[in-house]
Amino acid sequence: MFDKFREECGVFGVFGHREASRIAYLGLYALQHRGQESAGIVSSDGSGLHSETGMGHVADIFDQSRLEHLKGESAIGHTRYSTAGESASKNAQPLVVSCSQGDLGLCHNGNLINALQVRHQLEKAGSIFQSTTDSEVILHLIARSRQETIEDAIQEALSQLTGAYSLIFLTREKVIAVRDPRGFRPLNLGWLDGSPVLASETCAFDLIEARFDREVAPGEMLTLFKGGTRSRQISPPQSPSFCVFEHVYFSRPDSHIFGRSVYESRHLLGRTLAQEQPVEADIVVPVPDSGVAAAIGFSHESRIQFEFGLIRNHYVGRTFIEPKQSIRHFGVKIKLNPVAELIQGQRVVLVDDSIVRGTTSRKIVKMVRDAGALEVHVRISCPPTISPCFYGVDTPTKRELIASSHSVEEIRKYIKADSLGYLSHEGMLRSCGVEQGQGHFCSACYTGDYPVPFPQMSAVETA
Amino acid sequence: MFDKFREECGVFGVFGHREASRIAYLGLYALQHRGQESAGIVSSDGSGLHSETGMGHVADIFDQSRLEHLKGESAIGHTRYSTAGESASKNAQPLVVSCSQGDLGLCHNGNLINALQVRHQLEKAGSIFQSTTDSEVILHLIARSRQETIEDAIQEALSQLTGAYSLIFLTREKVIAVRDPRGFRPLNLGWLDGSPVLASETCAFDLIEARFDREVAPGEMLTLFKGGTRSRQISPPQSPSFCVFEHVYFSRPDSHIFGRSVYESRHLLGRTLAQEQPVEADIVVPVPDSGVAAAIGFSHESRIQFEFGLIRNHYVGRTFIEPKQSIRHFGVKIKLNPVAELIQGQRVVLVDDSIVRGTTSRKIVKMVRDAGALEVHVRISCPPTISPCFYGVDTPTKRELIASSHSVEEIRKYIKADSLGYLSHEGMLRSCGVEQGQGHFCSACYTGDYPVPFPQMSAVETA
Amino acid sequence: MFDKFREECGVFGVFGHREASRIAYLGLYALQHRGQESAGIVSSDGSGLHSETGMGHVADIFDQSRLEHLKGESAIGHTRYSTAGESASKNAQPLVVSCSQGDLGLCHNGNLINALQVRHQLEKAGSIFQSTTDSEVILHLIARSRQETIEDAIQEALSQLTGAYSLIFLTREKVIAVRDPRGFRPLNLGWLDGSPVLASETCAFDLIEARFDREVAPGEMLTLFKGGTRSRQISPPQSPSFCVFEHVYFSRPDSHIFGRSVYESRHLLGRTLAQEQPVEADIVVPVPDSGVAAAIGFSHESRIQFEFGLIRNHYVGRTFIEPKQSIRHFGVKIKLNPVAELIQGQRVVLVDDSIVRGTTSRKIVKMVRDAGALEVHVRISCPPTISPCFYGVDTPTKRELIASSHSVEEIRKYIKADSLGYLSHEGMLRSCGVEQGQGHFCSACYTGDYPVPFPQMSAVETA
Amino acid sequence: MFDKFREECGVFGVFGHREASRIAYLGLYALQHRGQESAGIVSSDGSGLHSETGMGHVADIFDQSRLEHLKGESAIGHTRYSTAGESASKNAQPLVVSCSQGDLGLCHNGNLINALQVRHQLEKAGSIFQSTTDSEVILHLIARSRQETIEDAIQEALSQLTGAYSLIFLTREKVIAVRDPRGFRPLNLGWLDGSPVLASETCAFDLIEARFDREVAPGEMLTLFKGGTRSRQISPPQSPSFCVFEHVYFSRPDSHIFGRSVYESRHLLGRTLAQEQPVEADIVVPVPDSGVAAAIGFSHESRIQFEFGLIRNHYVGRTFIEPKQSIRHFGVKIKLNPVAELIQGQRVVLVDDSIVRGTTSRKIVKMVRDAGALEVHVRISCPPTISPCFYGVDTPTKRELIASSHSVEEIRKYIKADSLGYLSHEGMLRSCGVEQGQGHFCSACYTGDYPVPFPQMSAVETA
Repeated sequence: MFDKFREECGVFGVFGHREASRIAYLGLYALQHRGQESAGIVSSDGSGLHSETGMGHVADIFDQSRLEHLKGESAIGHTRYSTAGESASKNAQPLVVSCSQGDLGLCHNGNLINALQVRHQLEKAGSIFQSTTDSEVILHLIARSRQETIEDAIQEALSQLTGAYSLIFLTREKVIAVRDPRGFRPLNLGWLDGSPVLASETCAFDLIEARFDREVAPGEMLTLFKGGTRSRQISPPQSPSFCVFEHVYFSRPDSHIFGRSVYESRHLLGRTLAQEQPVEADIVVPVPDSGVAAAIGFSHESRIQFEFGLIRNHYVGRTFIEPKQSIRHFGVKIKLNPVAELIQGQRVVLVDDSIVRGTTSRKIVKMVRDAGALEVHVRISCPPTISPCFYGVDTPTKRELIASSHSVEEIRKYIKADSLGYLSHEGMLRSCGVEQGQGHFCSACYTGDYPVPFPQMSAVETA
Repeated sequence: MFDKFREECGVFGVFGHREASRIAYLGLYALQHRGQESAGIVSSDGSGLHSETGMGHVADIFDQSRLEHLKGESAIGHTRYSTAGESASKNAQPLVVSCSQGDLGLCHNGNLINALQVRHQLEKAGSIFQSTTDSEVILHLIARSRQETIEDAIQEALSQLTGAYSLIFLTREKVIAVRDPRGFRPLNLGWLDGSPVLASETCAFDLIEARFDREVAPGEMLTLFKGGTRSRQISPPQSPSFCVFEHVYFSRPDSHIFGRSVYESRHLLGRTLAQEQPVEADIVVPVPDSGVAAAIGFSHESRIQFEFGLIRNHYVGRTFIEPKQSIRHFGVKIKLNPVAELIQGQRVVLVDDSIVRGTTSRKIVKMVRDAGALEVHVRISCPPTISPCFYGVDTPTKRELIASSHSVEEIRKYIKADSLGYLSHEGMLRSCGVEQGQGHFCSACYTGDYPVPFPQMSAVETA
Repeated sequence: MFDKFREECGVFGVFGHREASRIAYLGLYALQHRGQESAGIVSSDGSGLHSETGMGHVADIFDQSRLEHLKGESAIGHTRYSTAGESASKNAQPLVVSCSQGDLGLCHNGNLINALQVRHQLEKAGSIFQSTTDSEVILHLIARSRQETIEDAIQEALSQLTGAYSLIFLTREKVIAVRDPRGFRPLNLGWLDGSPVLASETCAFDLIEARFDREVAPGEMLTLFKGGTRSRQISPPQSPSFCVFEHVYFSRPDSHIFGRSVYESRHLLGRTLAQEQPVEADIVVPVPDSGVAAAIGFSHESRIQFEFGLIRNHYVGRTFIEPKQSIRHFGVKIKLNPVAELIQGQRVVLVDDSIVRGTTSRKIVKMVRDAGALEVHVRISCPPTISPCFYGVDTPTKRELIASSHSVEEIRKYIKADSLGYLSHEGMLRSCGVEQGQGHFCSACYTGDYPVPFPQMSAVETA
Repeated sequence: MFDKFREECGVFGVFGHREASRIAYLGLYALQHRGQESAGIVSSDGSGLHSETGMGHVADIFDQSRLEHLKGESAIGHTRYSTAGESASKNAQPLVVSCSQGDLGLCHNGNLINALQVRHQLEKAGSIFQSTTDSEVILHLIARSRQETIEDAIQEALSQLTGAYSLIFLTREKVIAVRDPRGFRPLNLGWLDGSPVLASETCAFDLIEARFDREVAPGEMLTLFKGGTRSRQISPPQSPSFCVFEHVYFSRPDSHIFGRSVYESRHLLGRTLAQEQPVEADIVVPVPDSGVAAAIGFSHESRIQFEFGLIRNHYVGRTFIEPKQSIRHFGVKIKLNPVAELIQGQRVVLVDDSIVRGTTSRKIVKMVRDAGALEVHVRISCPPTISPCFYGVDTPTKRELIASSHSVEEIRKYIKADSLGYLSHEGMLRSCGVEQGQGHFCSACYTGDYPVPFPQMSAVETA
């Protein structure tokens, strides 16, 4: 309903814990914001894999009996945003297959650049595909490997693939985590009661009270097995390309990502934005929930009073029955409502984290103005979004991105703001810790400068 | 899961609109926070009533076909918090019956003080009860009235009942709203495309783009019918007893209640709290979502920096499968997680709107301290809660309310805070607008001083 | 889908058995043919009643957890055919109320003749109605009785009502069965492990391995309580009016009804039909399932070979999605298919138990003729149905009954049979045991001669 | 619940009909008896395939919106009996994949003898398996074929497989039917409004009013495409091995199978049984529903009166909650109940179509004796079942088949019958039309003489 980029997956894994599937369930609960269309868990009891997947929220998919079915001491899980339509349920992850390497489960966060080419080659060589996800390609390459160990087979398979992938595999005896050589998407290692756990974000560790240890390194393969953990580097060192949008928007503010607090980054994004794009105004209002931390930073820096002037209805379900006669800016109204008393007669700074097509921003500006604002100044805590992502984020095409073909002034006019200011590219990177050496980010969506080249735009869905 | 008082109902009504049931559906959507266990709508097409009720959230209960079944141009709706167990579905509202006055639907927010006595009398006189709600008593008294008009019958029925009630009735031809003489619970009138609408809170008007007109007055009966609206005063004027907790906690901050902005009240509660209970600290952190506005007020007044240091997971469902081995303060963890970077090494002021049993506060203080806080100072934006409510709020018994038997210092020790400060009774009333003559509040839960006496504690459920 | 009269209820009760609700569940399973739209059970554990009802089949409504909720050692249950639409779920039985007589559950099979009049009087006197069933009237009259015992109150209530009723009440301490003075609908007493059980048909006793004892007598009230059973006659003896259609069609052939084997009656109906309406033919084919026993009787008497020439699909669900382009006689095809090899070139006697509107019979005759029959002779194991039932059977209006306005020859032409023969009224009664003094039947649907006069045609639904 | 062999699949296909998915839905409805655990339909609209599958009955799986999703003018469908447990839903058919041959759907009735060996080879060569069915092997072999046309690829794939298969494939442009060289399982071609249709049994044609044309021949591949139909023989002629159990038990009596009426076969089985195993008795009673036709044949031949002495409850659902205290022979009681009046004092011939483990027969004999039978003579309309089936029927292991290790007299003692008689092998074949050259049957379950040798007992599930 909202005009946002959408994260496409959260992944989780646990090895050697007697409540493995419950731990995975809790982990997915904390990663729900990374994908709300489907979720699944596959567990291993040493002699076979058990799988449960479903459409919808983690809380609705799993009940006592489904969790009890997920026997065993290791488990991996996945939350997913999937495109609408028929393919939804067959694309739900974890994928589970049996092949030359035995039973194998897979969770994937990211997107393979050359999946379509490899898929065509595999089909020519006789492989059959049951989903439309790029992730299935990985399993086929593993199945065709002549390597003797599963780790070698995974390494061989991944050597043929480029792009973004944070992967967690499950076999009968092991959990194996791999991150692509540039580390586009996050993946973290923690410990719970002596058992290793893996998660896209550290907020999942917090819920289960696991201790954060470290990131799985870019290009690292980390095997969790009875003997402990075993690490190997499966590709030569490359310059990292951490997704900067994880800090700007995707990740939960209470998470650590790429070795840095997300809240801290957002706070600084807001501060820097206030320095770069100052404005005379009476109150700073965030577009909740994602704009809150940046708005607080903006307020601290600018000394303009912070107010929670837009209230969000958190009970909004996945489908919504609209009235036949249209209500103005309905799509926004069902989620947001202004606090008129706050806004009435004020000059308002609206802090948000992105403008995608511009339609939602236009409605919000109108809504705030209708509530009595004298002026509405929009501040965006990152640069204009001009290029689609090919590394695991669901974005519209370049043509649909308003900033790809319009100047800031043109966008301002379209959304009918009194002023519009974006954060600079340099300011964004600095706020996310580049100077402290904490980030070597991919910011292709702001620059069109893609760190991993792609043969042609991928038509398969991302995971 | 959280240790809060619970609101027990939201009510909505619309008359003479060709999309009546969809408008009611939207209205309930905006009132979902007033009750999440069941919801229902009953509509009239002039020749009969149509009803759909269900357990759960509005978004899950209603689909296209159920809304289409709700034919006609008038409709009333209800969201409800109901106690667990077998009685849940039969107690879902609106109630619908046929009787001497014809077909009749009823939504009730509030609680009748003498329901049990009247019920016993009615049973003696031959009435049968199919629910365990106090609301059914109202319908029986109406059915037994010899008055010729439905308005007279309602008036006669209510003359035998005391307590809190904001009611909306539906007949084949009319919608009738009534508020008890003291106006415990809110009820508002608005206009949409020339059709009158009624709602517990004005946020429902905002969503459907209705214009707020005025409150239904305490003791007023307001009939919506083909000829327009018709008002009568059904009881002599009494001193109002608006529920102050609507401002402190229940209502949405973007609503107007009792003629005043809820956000404004909460902001002032926070400001006044900072004046009355100052503290040296580094950051002010709200317990989200309800503590946000007061925390902002506290920050503004105290000049201590506001930070969103506790992140709330909004995907939490109604049931939750706990791990067998307990996670510390699990009940809180599933909803809240601290941002460690913010809290680490800081002196933190936690702003919340109530301490009920003290167990949750104790867990939150621990969680914040574990995240590295040097000091944790708890500030509550109202006085200690010492007495249960008998006017429509679900509260524990007096014995369970920690403040009924413990001093502030004892509570501080129990929750393990470095300091604990409550807002004064006078400060609360002033913040909610008493001085501007905007409030004559019931604050019995803080004082034990009940504006309407009750024969004995009611055993029937409240609506 | 089929053009049949429809039975409207099965009732069951058990007292003092530690598996009461499971026994009731099994009993309803065996009575499923008496009503497939809704079912319910209410149990008593001595201190309160527990209720579970739902739409659909017994097997779909009840699961382990719902049965476990139905605590206690006594229980009553109901299966119901209800008319379509919104009223369905609120009309599901057992009804459960609390009133001056305490908590009360009710199952009703039959139809009250003067329910509408009494309902109007009750509404005038202040009663409210939550269902549209006539059964609710009984509860109101009981609630208004000044009698001290529940038995006296029931007796007083029933003295004001006329019509057909086999009732089972449940209080906290007792199960009470009552049958109307003419005994229209069946009700039987059995014993299971020393505990008394009640059921509409004895096939329910067979499943639970209870021993059939006797019928509850017309006009008898039978109380099951801790001290044993207690019987009283609540109305002076009247000539019985057993529903003859229970033998002709409704009851399961393995049941005893009104002191006689249903299979035996049907067999004799077929034999007598063969005597009265002989025909030269090659094979006798039943319209399954209800026509089977009569067809066997017809075959035995006529010496014409019996063949199972129409196969019934028992997987037919409650809703069915038709193709857009019509298939000839689709409504019949989805249930029945002829065995062409049997029928090809044969003169066929089709034995059925009723012609209601004639439309279905016409389709079946066509279907059999299309399968190659040389001649199709239709034989009906009862007289022409000319009048609607007011005693608990769902029948069309008189106008819709083809035999009410058409001669046998006209009906034959309409259904396009080579010959059509009905059983005589005298032959039907004789076959059902009248001569052995086993039956004093109501056959109003064949004669228009109603044993209990009615003030006007009832508009309320029957139970 | 019943101790029967279980058929494992029904298949259906239609090409070039504008209501293709509805026609498939109706076809599956008529084939529901061939598999009740899952069902599915996949359609083609020329540019892609659309798929809907689910657990349970056809009537419960498909609704208006799911059928509307199945766009296009060709469709194939499947009903399946699947083993319980986790694998159920992933094994539901039709299978749908994309591969070198494009999008491909598959329905399979039968069982491949060498599936496991081929699967191991395929896994070694790099194939991944997502189900545990043997059918997936077929798709992999097709995907790996270098043949240019899909027909050639299918032919090449099947040349590597042995066993029983009636297959229907769907591509974007074609529907392709194939039957194994021995024709174990049935497959028929018909015509509806000029469009070709395919079905396991002709009863599916009857419902949709299609005209039966002919069987798909053993070893034939029949392509349905825009230009009409195209046939090729994909294997040299072999002696047919039609499954005789289709006539004895599986198929609906109103179907034609292997060019012969099932009812006619069953009737003759009963007649021949009466000749071979005569008995002095008073009534012949079938075990419904499958024993009815044979019992009628037995009665005609023996001149012993036919009676429907066991009544079957057709409302039995898939799960059933048993009472804790056991009811004698409960598993049978829930489905069957004797008509005591018929049986009392009679010498009864019970006609059934198989004894598998003997436990059910023992309960039925007891039940009939308890109902008052003087003598109980059991007659089985086929020879003793001594060997499991490897060609698509779900049978217990050889050890569990009572007749594999017990003489007829020992079985008689175990089931406690007064006499027990089986039909001879020769009598069975003759009754099924062997003499008219209509049958060259596989009767391996009666002889242990398997027409297609198998390398080892297959561990994968059959389809």
